[in-house]
Amino acid sequence: MKVLIVGGVAAGASTAARIRRLDEMAEILILERDQYVSFANCGLPYHIGKIIPDRNSLLLHTPESLKQKLNIEVRTQHEVIKLHPASKEVEVKDINKGSTYKESYDKLVLCPGASPIRPPIPGANTPGVFVLRNIPDMDRIISQIDKGAKRAVVIGGSYIGLEVAEGFHAKGLHTTILEMSDRLMPWLDKEMTRILHFHVNSKKVDVKLGVAAKSITSKGNMLEIQLSNGEILETDVIVMATGVRPNVELAKEAGLKIGTRGGIAVNAQMQTSDPDIFAAGDAVETPHLITGAATLSMLAGPANRQGRIAADVICGKKSSYRGTQGTSVVKAFDMSVGGSGLTEQDLQRIGMDFRKIYLHPNDHAEYFPGASPMFIKVLFEPKEGKILGAQVLGWSGVDKRIDVFAMAIRAGMTIFDLEHLELSYAPPYASAKDPVNMAGFHGSNLLRGDIHLCYSEEFPECAERVTILDVRTRPEFDHWHIPGAILIPQTELRARIDELPKGKPIYTYCRSGVRSYMAYCILKQRGFKEVFSLAGGLMTYHGYHKTPLASGSAGYPVVTHAEDILAQKPGAVDHL
Amino acid sequence: MKVLIVGGVAAGASTAARIRRLDEMAEILILERDQYVSFANCGLPYHIGKIIPDRNSLLLHTPESLKQKLNIEVRTQHEVIKLHPASKEVEVKDINKGSTYKESYDKLVLCPGASPIRPPIPGANTPGVFVLRNIPDMDRIISQIDKGAKRAVVIGGSYIGLEVAEGFHAKGLHTTILEMSDRLMPWLDKEMTRILHFHVNSKKVDVKLGVAAKSITSKGNMLEIQLSNGEILETDVIVMATGVRPNVELAKEAGLKIGTRGGIAVNAQMQTSDPDIFAAGDAVETPHLITGAATLSMLAGPANRQGRIAADVICGKKSSYRGTQGTSVVKAFDMSVGGSGLTEQDLQRIGMDFRKIYLHPNDHAEYFPGASPMFIKVLFEPKEGKILGAQVLGWSGVDKRIDVFAMAIRAGMTIFDLEHLELSYAPPYASAKDPVNMAGFHGSNLLRGDIHLCYSEEFPECAERVTILDVRTRPEFDHWHIPGAILIPQTELRARIDELPKGKPIYTYCRSGVRSYMAYCILKQRGFKEVFSLAGGLMTYHGYHKTPLASGSAGYPVVTHAEDILAQKPGAVDHL
Repeated sequence: MKVLIVGGVAAGASTAARIRRLDEMAEILILERDQYVSFANCGLPYHIGKIIPDRNSLLLHTPESLKQKLNIEVRTQHEVIKLHPASKEVEVKDINKGSTYKESYDKLVLCPGASPIRPPIPGANTPGVFVLRNIPDMDRIISQIDKGAKRAVVIGGSYIGLEVAEGFHAKGLHTTILEMSDRLMPWLDKEMTRILHFHVNSKKVDVKLGVAAKSITSKGNMLEIQLSNGEILETDVIVMATGVRPNVELAKEAGLKIGTRGGIAVNAQMQTSDPDIFAAGDAVETPHLITGAATLSMLAGPANRQGRIAADVICGKKSSYRGTQGTSVVKAFDMSVGGSGLTEQDLQRIGMDFRKIYLHPNDHAEYFPGASPMFIKVLFEPKEGKILGAQVLGWSGVDKRIDVFAMAIRAGMTIFDLEHLELSYAPPYASAKDPVNMAGFHGSNLLRGDIHLCYSEEFPECAERVTILDVRTRPEFDHWHIPGAILIPQTELRARIDELPKGKPIYTYCRSGVRSYMAYCILKQRGFKEVFSLAGGLMTYHGYHKTPLASGSAGYPVVTHAEDILAQKPGAVDHL
Repeated sequence: MKVLIVGGVAAGASTAARIRRLDEMAEILILERDQYVSFANCGLPYHIGKIIPDRNSLLLHTPESLKQKLNIEVRTQHEVIKLHPASKEVEVKDINKGSTYKESYDKLVLCPGASPIRPPIPGANTPGVFVLRNIPDMDRIISQIDKGAKRAVVIGGSYIGLEVAEGFHAKGLHTTILEMSDRLMPWLDKEMTRILHFHVNSKKVDVKLGVAAKSITSKGNMLEIQLSNGEILETDVIVMATGVRPNVELAKEAGLKIGTRGGIAVNAQMQTSDPDIFAAGDAVETPHLITGAATLSMLAGPANRQGRIAADVICGKKSSYRGTQGTSVVKAFDMSVGGSGLTEQDLQRIGMDFRKIYLHPNDHAEYFPGASPMFIKVLFEPKEGKILGAQVLGWSGVDKRIDVFAMAIRAGMTIFDLEHLELSYAPPYASAKDPVNMAGFHGSNLLRGDIHLCYSEEFPECAERVTILDVRTRPEFDHWHIPGAILIPQTELRARIDELPKGKPIYTYCRSGVRSYMAYCILKQRGFKEVFSLAGGLMTYHGYHKTPLASGSAGYPVVTHAEDILAQKPGAVDHL
C-alpha cells in the first residue's frame, strides 16, 4: 500500500505515524510545500517573546528523524499542485528545482491546513507587515524586532493575536491590539471578555476595539496604519492575526465535495467524496457534537485525532470521528480563558432555547495562599438541563474547569449531574465543593425554581417602580453601587426587612451572587412576591455596564474603586 | 420544623446552611462539642508550617457569623451524649457548666465526623505526642514547635502525615515519617508511590517504611520512640496520623443501624434506620460508585454534598446520593498525587478482572517551559473497557487529570471513549493529544490486540530463554539498563533487525513505553511471533525494582544515574 500525505504538520504527521505503527510495510510519503515538517506551530508566538527560548525546540521532527524513527519519506518544499483522482496520482512541484512530477497513490490523505487571511487593505503587503503561521513567518517577525522595533501593532484579538501581543510585550515593544469586533476573543460571549481586556490593559498593552485597519503605508523606517475611526497609528512592526481560511483549492479543483462551511467535506471515517482520498485537520469540516452542524474547528487537538482516525480507516480498522465541541483555552499574560460547547451568541444565532448562570468561586480554598476568583458561565437546556456550553476565565485552575465541563458536555451530562461530581480536593487545588459542583448547585436551583435570576443586560436602571437592594457591606456599597440601590447588608436583612417597600419587585445583588441568593431566600419566604437575584452579581455586571472597574492587575482584576469590590471577601458563608 | 444537627464542621455546617436557604422559618440548632465550628480542617497542617500564615483564616465561621448570616443557632462545647429517638430528643452536656439538658427535634442530623486513631502503644499519651483533627490539636503542635523543637516524627505516611511532615519541614525541623506499610500513601498502588518517596527523601525528610512505633517514652526534654525494627529515634515532637475512625457511638447506642464497614448506615437520602434521623460526613458509609460495596470515604467533598442532600430531603425535596468513587489528591512538597476509582490492590482484593496501562506523558507541550513528566496508571475492564480507576503522580497538572478521569468514571466511559475526548489545549497547559487522550490510545491498542504488554512485576530477569531488547539510545543504555539487555536503538531497529535471535520471545523496553511500542510494531510485523513491550517502560519499572534511581528533586524525579534516564528526552516522535 502506498499512502501519499499532503501536508506534514499536525494532522499529516499524526496520520503518517499512526499508519506506520499499524502497517510496517506501507509506503508512506509526506509531501510538504513548506521548508519544515511537523513543527510546533502552537509554540511560534512564544518564541517571538523568547518565552520559549530555543528555536530548535519548535522543530519536533525533521525529514531525517521521521525516516529514522518511522521509515516515513518526507519531501519538504514539494508542493502538490493538482490531484488526479481518476488515475490516483498527484502532480508535485519541486519548489527548489522548479520542476514537476507525478506521484501515484493507493490512498491519499489531504492535510493542507489553513492559511492566514491577510485583509485586502491597501498596503497589506508592505514590508514590516506579517502573518504568523509557520517558522519562516516567525523568523521574519523576529528579524524585524531585531532591527530595533520599539512599537508593534497586532491586528486581531483572538488566540494568535493575544499570544503574539504577549510576545511583543515580553520583548519590550509598546504593543497595540486592534480588534474589529467589540471584544477580545470574539468567539466568547462579550461579558466574559471584559476582565480579560482590563487585564491586558494593565500590562500597558493598548486594546482598540471596534476599529479596523483601513490601510497601511510605509513612512521611512516606520509604518503608519490608518484606522476606521480616523486615527493614525505609527508602528515598527505589524502582525495580522485575523483568522485563517481552510486550504481547499486542491480538493475543490479535483471535484471533491466542499462542505457548507467551506471546508473539505468528510464522513466520520475522514473520507472525502472520493473513497480513496481522506482529509484531516484545519481544512476539513466536521459535525458539531451538540448541534450536528458543520463546523471548522481549526484546533490542534481535533486535527491530530482526525489524522489518527484516517490512518486507522486506511489500515482497515473501525474508527469514527465523534464530532467537535470546540474546547479551547488561551493564556493571556497572567490569565487564562476558554470554554467548551456553545456560547450564548451561538445559541441565539441558531435559535436554541437555553438558561444561563454565572458564578465566581475561588479556584481553590480561600484560606490557602494564592486563591483567585474565577469567572464561570454555564449554558444549559431549560428542561432537562443538558449542558450546552461553558466559558471560564481566571488566573488559575481555568484549564482544569474547562476540561471538566468539556467532559460533562462530551458525556451528555445535565446541570443536575454536576451537583454530584466527585472531583479531587485538597486546599491548594480546589474547594470541597468544587467550582463545577457550585455551578451544578446554582443551575439546579434555577431549573427547580429555587431562585429567580435577573441578568445584567436587563437589570432595571430606574429605581422608581422597583427596589434595587444591595446586600453587601457598607464599605463595598460606599466604593460603588448600582445607581438608585439601597443598602441592607445580608446579615441585617432579617432584622430590617420592614424597611423595604411592599408591593414593588425587589432586585437584589451582591458581589458574586451568593449573598443575594441568600437574601432572595429570605425575602421570598418572608412574603415578598417578586424577587430577583442579579446573576453573577457585580462581577458579571461589570461585563455589561460601565462601572469604576477600569483596569486589571495580576491576582485580582482591578484597580481603583473596583479593587475592593472584587478583593472584598464575600464572607466565608459563600462556601457553605 | 426544628432541626438539630450534631456536629458543625463540614457536613453539619453544609446541612444547616442548605436547610436555612430552603426554609427560612425552620429552627436550626447546631450542637458542637468542640470549641470551634465550621473551621477549615483541611488547612490545619498548612498552618503548622505557616504555609497558611494566618490562623484566623482557618476559622471560616463563628457562632455569631452563622447567627447573623443564616439565623442558625450554634452551641459550641455542647456535646450530645445520648439520643432518645422514641421521644425525639437528645441529651446535651454543656461542657463548660458540666450540666446536661434535653433538646427536642423534628429532624435530627448526625454529623459527628471521625476521630483520629491513637495507636494503643505504651506512651501514646506522653506529652509531646499529638494527633491533628481540630484547631486545639493544631495549636498544641505549634506550641510544641515554639518551645524549640528541632526534630519531629510523623507516624503515618498518608494524606495528613505527608501534609504535617511538610509543615514541620517548612519550620526547619528535621522530620521523619514512619509508615507501617511498604509505601507512602498506602491506598495507592505501591509502584505509583516510589517516585513520591524519592521526592520526599530529596527534601531531607526521612521516610521509614515497614516499621511501626512500639512505644514512646519521655526522656527529659525529649521523646524516644522504640521502633518495631529495634531502632530508637529521638525527637522533640510526635504527630500520630494513623487514620481516623467514624464516630458512631451515639448512633450505635441509640440502636441505629451500623453498616458493614463500621459507619452509620444510611440510604441514598442520607436517612438512617430511623426516618427522622439523618447522617452525613465521615461517620457514614455509602455505596461505592463502581462496586456498590459499602465504603467510608472520609473526604470533605462527599461530606459536604451528603449534608446538602440530607437538607434537601428534610425540606421535602427529591435528592439522592449517587455513590462514592474515592477521588482524592494530596500535595507533597513539589509533587501531587491522587486518583479516582479502584486501585489494582482493590481489584485484586475483590477479585474483579482488569487490564492496566502505565504512561508518562509530559503535563504540557515539551517545548513550552516547565514541562514535567507525569506517572499515570489506568485500570479498566478487559472486555468493554469500562474505566475502573486511575492514579496520577507528577509535578503539574495532576489534579486536572485526576478530575478528567473522575469525570470519565462518573460517566461510565470506556478506555475507548478517552481516545475521543476534546480537552483544552494550549502549550502552557497540555499537549494537542492530552495525557488522557494518550491513555485512551494506549489502552485501546491493548484491548484491540495492537500491543502486547509485559509488566514490570513479571518482567523476565533471565536473558537466556528470552531476548531483552533495550531500544533507547546509547547514552541512556550506558547510564543503566536492565541486566542482560541488548541495545538496538529504535531508530536503528529496521536496519539491524537480523541481529536479533530468532525463535526466542523478545521483551522490549524504553524509558516510558513509547519507543518500545514502536519497536513492538516493527518486530511483530517483520516476523517475530512473541514480542512484548514493557508497560510504562523504565519509569514504571523503577516502581517495582531496585535501580540506580535513588532520590528525587523538583522538576524531575531523580538524582545520580537515573537523572538522565528520566530527563532524557524520549524523542519527540513520542508525541505524534
